[in-house]
Amino acid sequence: MSAQNEYSTRGSYVTDGEAFERDTQYIEDRIVADPDAVRQLPAPPASKIGTVGAGLSDGAQAWPVEPHRYRLVAARACPWANRTLIVRRLLGLEDVISIGLPGPVHDARSWTFDLDPDGRDPVLGTERLQSNYFARFPDYPRGITVPAIVDIPSGAVVTNDYPQITLDFSTEWREFHREGAPDLLPVEHREEMWPLMNRVFTEVNNGVYRCGFAGSQAAYDEAYARLWSTLDWLEDRLATRRFLMGDRITEADVRLFTTLVRFDPVYHGHFKTNRQRLSEMPHLWAYARDLFQTPGFGDTVDFQEIKEHYYITHSDINPTGIVPAGPDLSDWLEPHGRENLGDAPFGAGTAPGPVPPHERVTAGHNPMYPAGD
Amino acid sequence: MSAQNEYSTRGSYVTDGEAFERDTQYIEDRIVADPDAVRQLPAPPASKIGTVGAGLSDGAQAWPVEPHRYRLVAARACPWANRTLIVRRLLGLEDVISIGLPGPVHDARSWTFDLDPDGRDPVLGTERLQSNYFARFPDYPRGITVPAIVDIPSGAVVTNDYPQITLDFSTEWREFHREGAPDLLPVEHREEMWPLMNRVFTEVNNGVYRCGFAGSQAAYDEAYARLWSTLDWLEDRLATRRFLMGDRITEADVRLFTTLVRFDPVYHGHFKTNRQRLSEMPHLWAYARDLFQTPGFGDTVDFQEIKEHYYITHSDINPTGIVPAGPDLSDWLEPHGRENLGDAPFGAGTAPGPVPPHERVTAGHNPMYPAGD
Repeated sequence: MSAQNEYSTRGSYVTDGEAFERDTQYIEDRIVADPDAVRQLPAPPASKIGTVGAGLSDGAQAWPVEPHRYRLVAARACPWANRTLIVRRLLGLEDVISIGLPGPVHDARSWTFDLDPDGRDPVLGTERLQSNYFARFPDYPRGITVPAIVDIPSGAVVTNDYPQITLDFSTEWREFHREGAPDLLPVEHREEMWPLMNRVFTEVNNGVYRCGFAGSQAAYDEAYARLWSTLDWLEDRLATRRFLMGDRITEADVRLFTTLVRFDPVYHGHFKTNRQRLSEMPHLWAYARDLFQTPGFGDTVDFQEIKEHYYITHSDINPTGIVPAGPDLSDWLEPHGRENLGDAPFGAGTAPGPVPPHERVTAGHNPMYPAGD
Repeated sequence: MSAQNEYSTRGSYVTDGEAFERDTQYIEDRIVADPDAVRQLPAPPASKIGTVGAGLSDGAQAWPVEPHRYRLVAARACPWANRTLIVRRLLGLEDVISIGLPGPVHDARSWTFDLDPDGRDPVLGTERLQSNYFARFPDYPRGITVPAIVDIPSGAVVTNDYPQITLDFSTEWREFHREGAPDLLPVEHREEMWPLMNRVFTEVNNGVYRCGFAGSQAAYDEAYARLWSTLDWLEDRLATRRFLMGDRITEADVRLFTTLVRFDPVYHGHFKTNRQRLSEMPHLWAYARDLFQTPGFGDTVDFQEIKEHYYITHSDINPTGIVPAGPDLSDWLEPHGRENLGDAPFGAGTAPGPVPPHERVTAGHNPMYPAGD
């Protein structure tokens, strides 16, 4: 059984006769408000969804929160990276953590900064994210994944532990949150959130990959049944709740959203998750549109890069590399009608302001930003 | 440029950098009511959709209509073969032309009778349709295609010229039509039907293949635009007409139906024809359900064999061979509400009776025949 990061660059995704198994070993360093204090805390439990309130994993280091010191490298195509782009926007960390945006199509060795002038990240100066991994670990043996946070002075990767990155944005970077930033981890909901986020991770976020990279019909059939069982459960849950935990947006919504927004453009056909389209699941579809239309969510989404990433990179399931022209995405801007289920998406906080022009999604790649604008 | 029959057995379908081009050379013999008379008629014009009233193509032979002499070999999976199954049912030719049903998954050399006891067609006695082609042409150089009509006494293929086969069922086998058989080629509509059937053939029937087997992004993009241009035109046409030519079913409907019924289960994902699903095109979707629910149409459809055929056979676009579990097909039996556009689908004729039990689609492969029945 070969464990893989499909957002890494290991080359092939499907192992004949086998179920897909995600490689969940990451660089588990953390950037925290008080490194000394964190070093004293007990190590976190094994978790694929991150933890709050624990210390460092065995061998991991603590780095200090410091504005302008770190660069978040996050391809828009990647759902795990997309989480970090959303949370950074919701919390207003744009001014203290800059972003580098690799293009949608990596090669077998690395994500690359091919969208930037001269093909180099303008801050890090590297052409390949691999260089920043090697600056930290010259023999780094695993896939080169996004999101990754890079220490700008040294050019070295600090962490690529995506389940933890967004949690630390919420808890450790609090001093630098914008005025009105929402609490994405409300204490009163955490007990219910963790099992829910775990189920969303195993059955949905990762479940779609288990469908798409199944190496046997039996593995696919099982993955499909598990995925749809949880999507049905979510559809039911969202019939009476505007958001997953009730009337406020939380981290759990961010994590579900990044899969839902890719569902019809990619997973339905490319990963064969095709019992229904998202747009045929009334509550999930209205919920996804509601989030999409909320500042900080849809404005981070580049549908064109998403499609190119999956259809071009996964050559073992789409060897022609042809990228579908569909589906029609204009429906994402249709009214969702969910205000009656709750009217304070940001709790006591406020929505983030507009996206800075230099961080806007390419016109024509998102119905919010029509081509020609 | 390599011309191909994707319903043949040539092995690979996509030619890198090239558009898909269908091989339209067939064995153009015909089975006719009066061979001598047909031999006197002028040769037909070049046509990919067949002709009525012309003679034989250069080098082709005329065989006499004769009940029980011929066997129609028609895999349920194949849309071109599906036409012949529908027209045979509509006209009530079941008692005079028997059918052989190859399984959905052929190998590189031939369609095979793997669904039959001992893997042999019970009438022809062959394991591979190829043997029946070789009985006629020992060095037959082209793909082994269905539908094919075989002369039972000699075991030799007579014709695989699918555009002509259904037309000859209508015109040449008239003596053996059932009481109440519809006229699928009404004289008053023929002038309009031929250009329409030609457009449906080039843009839709074959258009979906041009999307799926495109060897470059540019070829795909062009094919997709052409397909949707004609689907939009058909959607508009069917807003005010119950069937393509008005209030009666014709050959044109048979030809469009076999593509529509495969659209959501296969073409949408596998061939990337994904601007919308059929079920999102209101008139086309209601029209397709109307036909599906009409005796002679839906009762010939085996969704499971259709999915297996495409997803397993086309290993160059689906190398894993995984067959999707979706989509949910129960909607095909929903009311279509099109009776108000015309209430005589069979014109002055009547609907065919029930399918003989030994020709029924496998239970569980079609929502009409639930598993366990």
